[in-house]
Amino acid sequence: MPAIARIEAGHYRIPLPEVLSDSTHGAIPAFELITCRVFDAEGAEGMGYTYTVGRNGGAIRHILAEEIAEIAAGADADLTEALWRRVWWALHYGGRGGPAVLAQSAFDIALWDLKAKRAGCALWRLLGGHDPRVPCYAGGIDLDLSVDALLRQTEGNLARGFRAIKMKVGRPRLAEDVEKLKAMRAHLGPGFPLMVDANMRWTADEAIRAARAFAPFDPYWLEEPVVPEDVAGHARVLREGGLPVASGENLRSLWEFQALIAAGGVSFPEPDVTNCGGVTSFMKVARLAEAFQLPVTSHGAHDITVQLLAACPNRSFLEAHGFGLERIIAEPLRMEEGCAIAPDRPGHGVAFDWDALAALRA
Amino acid sequence: MPAIARIEAGHYRIPLPEVLSDSTHGAIPAFELITCRVFDAEGAEGMGYTYTVGRNGGAIRHILAEEIAEIAAGADADLTEALWRRVWWALHYGGRGGPAVLAQSAFDIALWDLKAKRAGCALWRLLGGHDPRVPCYAGGIDLDLSVDALLRQTEGNLARGFRAIKMKVGRPRLAEDVEKLKAMRAHLGPGFPLMVDANMRWTADEAIRAARAFAPFDPYWLEEPVVPEDVAGHARVLREGGLPVASGENLRSLWEFQALIAAGGVSFPEPDVTNCGGVTSFMKVARLAEAFQLPVTSHGAHDITVQLLAACPNRSFLEAHGFGLERIIAEPLRMEEGCAIAPDRPGHGVAFDWDALAALRA
Ligand SMILES: [Mg+2]
Ligand SMILES: [Mg+2]
Repeated sequence: MPAIARIEAGHYRIPLPEVLSDSTHGAIPAFELITCRVFDAEGAEGMGYTYTVGRNGGAIRHILAEEIAEIAAGADADLTEALWRRVWWALHYGGRGGPAVLAQSAFDIALWDLKAKRAGCALWRLLGGHDPRVPCYAGGIDLDLSVDALLRQTEGNLARGFRAIKMKVGRPRLAEDVEKLKAMRAHLGPGFPLMVDANMRWTADEAIRAARAFAPFDPYWLEEPVVPEDVAGHARVLREGGLPVASGENLRSLWEFQALIAAGGVSFPEPDVTNCGGVTSFMKVARLAEAFQLPVTSHGAHDITVQLLAACPNRSFLEAHGFGLERIIAEPLRMEEGCAIAPDRPGHGVAFDWDALAALRA
Repeated sequence: MPAIARIEAGHYRIPLPEVLSDSTHGAIPAFELITCRVFDAEGAEGMGYTYTVGRNGGAIRHILAEEIAEIAAGADADLTEALWRRVWWALHYGGRGGPAVLAQSAFDIALWDLKAKRAGCALWRLLGGHDPRVPCYAGGIDLDLSVDALLRQTEGNLARGFRAIKMKVGRPRLAEDVEKLKAMRAHLGPGFPLMVDANMRWTADEAIRAARAFAPFDPYWLEEPVVPEDVAGHARVLREGGLPVASGENLRSLWEFQALIAAGGVSFPEPDVTNCGGVTSFMKVARLAEAFQLPVTSHGAHDITVQLLAACPNRSFLEAHGFGLERIIAEPLRMEEGCAIAPDRPGHGVAFDWDALAALRA
């Protein structure tokens, strides 16, 4: 039995190559990386991480180092289901979301990494191998770019091999969004998968109006039209707006996904493995989507998520973020003809350069 | 303008007079108290607090001290609505629940205390005075007590002036719960308000079975029959079980209450001012309940909550907890003939003995 011997938590502030912006978070000059290293009694290590757009990282590190380390001490690291329940309920009062579930996600990722490493197996094979080639899109965080700058960024993404692209919407005037979308469609040509992301900016009625204005330019999906709490609003936007709806980066449990999916509020469920409860929850969301005849896409942490979508027959596009983690990852994700390739190294295959990270400690 | 000059956060571990137990949290030997003191530029102070049953307190203190203090620095403390939105969205990624909303609750309580103190007015008057006398029940945390011990505890509660009592249910065998409830009803006589609380122990079907077994003993309400995520389950228990349902101590926003209320899943919405988002959110939940022709009850922090229910025409019973805060509060809540009396001191009227607390720092 791989008993948990030690858990190490780290908290880092990673400056972004360029300041990003979206309609709700404003300018994002840096993001927080919170790491979780789990060592078993034989010295084997699993690694997980989560991140934020700039706040709550200290609380997340605290929960990993002071709460989860104590809750999980000595436990059998293979019992990912049992440990998931144990941590969820130990943290429940004051938990059930927020920093507690981000911390739990990082811990769960580390357990799955450890499990797969001990099995000498890539995570995507362990979880149910489907196809290591996962179509991938470039997730631009580019609300404040002019049309020209957006097209230049797009050229760069095409040159880097992307065959699908997402852009932000939610400018103060809808006409600005329409103008940018129109220019992007003209630039990319018909049929090129082009998503738009409103980051919860609108009311349901505003989103329906926007969806109808966007429809002539054929967006692949409309992402987060309204706040995550507005399940009925999601369902209205989907039905009345006439576009597929993606949502999920701000849902924090299997049950929040169940409620949104069962209400007919989402076409592309979009869990983030670093905040939905880890690999354990992400895979349940993916299978739930399959049961509802829906695809599953993703948010964030593409280096780990490629392993999960490679295990899903219903996988849609993987989101590739521009968070610049490449600088501190030993072997960054490989892309070929618009697909990310899940590596066959044991575990999830992501190894941080801890020396490089040390200089970025928060 | 009362500009926010300084925010001080404290984290304390308060040993309980006796070890408490319920069906999900197990034994609770101590709870965590997390305090938030807001000082304005003129030296006036508002105080808020939140608490946990033993975990996440360090994360909550961290969010108050490191995030909210920065987010709110220099702001006009009177703008409780504007500040609520600002904090909610600043913490949203990695927030929207969990430790982030408990921290926000403590901060919001402090702002309302400050606002009322500056106005020289008791909070219940400021919020819309209804009646300072609020019927109150003794919330027993007593799942592990024998029938005899439960009746002894009940005698003590009657002697202390309580005219309504809540007991825990959710023992491994339903027959044990029924036996205790039957003994309590025989002891208290018909019509005495006697609530039962399952602390999320059951599935919907188990809860319906329990509700039907309890019905002959006329419980006033059945509390938290299922997990907070199970909105449809709440609605089934309410309709098919035949008892009124109380729920809310594990809901973390106005919108979670809206979903449960609109689904017909709750008869007695039960917000906790220290974890639902503070006074700002509690009052919105109370008014939402009124709009749906529902009463509003409460969970926890009775010393502050009495002020809020005293402002609500639809107020049901106030829960009085046995957390032993009396030892560190200057003027503990006064009770008369089963009613708690909202004091007429400016603010919420709760002042901690900071010297006594210093010895309990976590
Ligand atoms: Mg998005
Ligand atoms: Mg309760």
